[in-house]
Amino acid sequence: MNRKKKGIVVLGSTGSVGVNTLSVISQNPERFRIDGLSCHNNISLLIEQIETFSPKVVSVSEKQAPALRKLVRERNLSVKVSEGLPGHIEVACYHDASLVVAAMVGAAGIEPVMAAIRHQKTIALANKESLVLAGSLLISEAEKKGVQILPIDSEHNAIFQSLRDENPDHLDHITLTASGGPFRTLPKAQFKDITLDAALKHPNWDMGKKITIDSATMMNKCLEIIEAKWLFRINPRQIKVLIHPQSIVHSMVTFKDASTICQMGTPDMRIPIANCLGFPDRISSGSSFLNLAETGTLSFEEPDLNRFPSLKMAYDVLKLGGGSPAALNGANEVLVDLFLNEKIPFIQIFDVLSDLVLQLKNLKNSQQLNETPYLFEIHQISDAISADEWGRDFASTSISLTID
Amino acid sequence: MNRKKKGIVVLGSTGSVGVNTLSVISQNPERFRIDGLSCHNNISLLIEQIETFSPKVVSVSEKQAPALRKLVRERNLSVKVSEGLPGHIEVACYHDASLVVAAMVGAAGIEPVMAAIRHQKTIALANKESLVLAGSLLISEAEKKGVQILPIDSEHNAIFQSLRDENPDHLDHITLTASGGPFRTLPKAQFKDITLDAALKHPNWDMGKKITIDSATMMNKCLEIIEAKWLFRINPRQIKVLIHPQSIVHSMVTFKDASTICQMGTPDMRIPIANCLGFPDRISSGSSFLNLAETGTLSFEEPDLNRFPSLKMAYDVLKLGGGSPAALNGANEVLVDLFLNEKIPFIQIFDVLSDLVLQLKNLKNSQQLNETPYLFEIHQISDAISADEWGRDFASTSISLTID
Repeated sequence: MNRKKKGIVVLGSTGSVGVNTLSVISQNPERFRIDGLSCHNNISLLIEQIETFSPKVVSVSEKQAPALRKLVRERNLSVKVSEGLPGHIEVACYHDASLVVAAMVGAAGIEPVMAAIRHQKTIALANKESLVLAGSLLISEAEKKGVQILPIDSEHNAIFQSLRDENPDHLDHITLTASGGPFRTLPKAQFKDITLDAALKHPNWDMGKKITIDSATMMNKCLEIIEAKWLFRINPRQIKVLIHPQSIVHSMVTFKDASTICQMGTPDMRIPIANCLGFPDRISSGSSFLNLAETGTLSFEEPDLNRFPSLKMAYDVLKLGGGSPAALNGANEVLVDLFLNEKIPFIQIFDVLSDLVLQLKNLKNSQQLNETPYLFEIHQISDAISADEWGRDFASTSISLTID
Repeated sequence: MNRKKKGIVVLGSTGSVGVNTLSVISQNPERFRIDGLSCHNNISLLIEQIETFSPKVVSVSEKQAPALRKLVRERNLSVKVSEGLPGHIEVACYHDASLVVAAMVGAAGIEPVMAAIRHQKTIALANKESLVLAGSLLISEAEKKGVQILPIDSEHNAIFQSLRDENPDHLDHITLTASGGPFRTLPKAQFKDITLDAALKHPNWDMGKKITIDSATMMNKCLEIIEAKWLFRINPRQIKVLIHPQSIVHSMVTFKDASTICQMGTPDMRIPIANCLGFPDRISSGSSFLNLAETGTLSFEEPDLNRFPSLKMAYDVLKLGGGSPAALNGANEVLVDLFLNEKIPFIQIFDVLSDLVLQLKNLKNSQQLNETPYLFEIHQISDAISADEWGRDFASTSISLTID
């Protein structure tokens, strides 16, 4: 095959999505070339990836940069090592790359994604914080630059595949499916006894710890509703959630004629990743094919907003607008971290986030916006970051008040 | 709305698909105009349809034409009444119509469909005999004339919706779903005791008698495999069948990346009909939206080729080629008619059709093709009709030998 290879940058290459991305790229060596990689701290894996994929430039945290440079010298590798946020942005904007896989975790991903959009790179987006925090900014910039944002998240990728070239005016609603997590059938009275070990056992997907806890609280689905609003530019009322414990139907689109189109597959992130990397072609994902006769049964049920109040919060913060989703997400990150460190019980995540939404509503109603205008209106990424920090402070303060 | 209405002809307007087509058209009066209608004998319903939709031309059997003309005069309606095959062809080719819904039952549908293709009408095809008998001829003519054939059959329409603009090279396989009919779980030993009443009770779909029996024998799915081969121009090896008792997932498409796309909906023919009438727009079908939480469970299982040998026959006759599918279909029509008239037991349908496939294989192997060349090669519609007649004779002869 003589066609030019597509140059790829993977931000967050040592995380779960990053590793799966490189696995898909290994399946299709004739199609892709790795131009850049970045990660936070895992330089022992990054150095292996550098040896395998020969990127031109990589970036790590300032703290790990000296150690990585030493490894690169020792192994006699030819790669530029950059560091910190400027380094990540440099990798994201590498001149020869055409597609940036944004797979880093957390708010730190926004600036590199925005920079890549400004440089007209196609974005394969797994970093949901980018859209949760600054969806309006990223989407309007992408529209201005004519940049396509391809969703890697299995739910949003399913919707992307189901929508194809359909006229958005023909859409009635989309349905995000949710496994329901490990506590789908747990009675509410037992939520107070949930242990960290139990919360880390996701029934279907093998993912990072943060996202596994978000799946247990269904905050993951809350964030996905926000993400979907921006990716597909639809009214939140057109976004539904349906519990589907087997995680085979990854999400659905329903048109005005009462036809529903959905994408299905084994729960394997390589499928949506391959879709984004190859689009509009379909390339080998390395995943096994779905065998529905073997699966036997697919089941569906309405979500329980009483046990999982997180779902309703998505609609609340989208209605509040501005930095409210960022505040909710920032608070959630603090709370999940505390739960992972066994500092707070599981249900306190819900309690503090519910308080936060209530506080946001009160602030908006009281019209005391002068001190925190970014909570209800954002004009630049720093506004989103301020809202994120406000949420983090709110969570930390709430918890310290409880502990004191 | 000032845009020009789409002129529609409905062949077989008094049958189940015809009536549903007119129901969808009633839902969208601003979009469509009925130019022509045809039916076989049901002139009491046809006269109502003429009053409601004011077609320019209609056609019925020679036998019913005088009675219909009398009704038209009595009611002072302004419509041309034509008759017989020439009349059906005249309706199918009505100059001002752009889309022909081919919803008549049986081999009699082929000539009008071919004529409509030659007149460059878009075809919304429900008459599966057209493709089963003369798929190669119709498809090559449609390609030559640049005519689109839109499938109304719920399974093929689901595949059509799932494929959209995807590159056919990216397809791995398609999966036709099948309810399994009323005898899905019946042990083989009890097939000999199947009554007509039991066979006429389809679990999900409300359809005509012929197709309901074909669903009970799964000959319907056999014919759909043949149809799919022509509609989507794929290798029969790429066509799978999966039992799905709830008839919610209407069929699926699986790509090389291990993604499966499917179309779902309530079992209501107005959905695929609306898709064909409105394509590429999506219009109101009048059908209720799918509520998967209410449905609860979708189940899937492999078909049992031992109890339903009909499925394997599709691959056999496609491999034999030429008029072999037409012969199988013709024999099946005779056998279903005999069963509906309680002249033969249910299992004799399988026995005679199995004998027919065996006989076709023997004929092909013995290379005694001179007498019946059309069984393995067709060049014109009359070849397909000859093969159909050969199949009908084979069935009648087999049965009379049994009865004697």
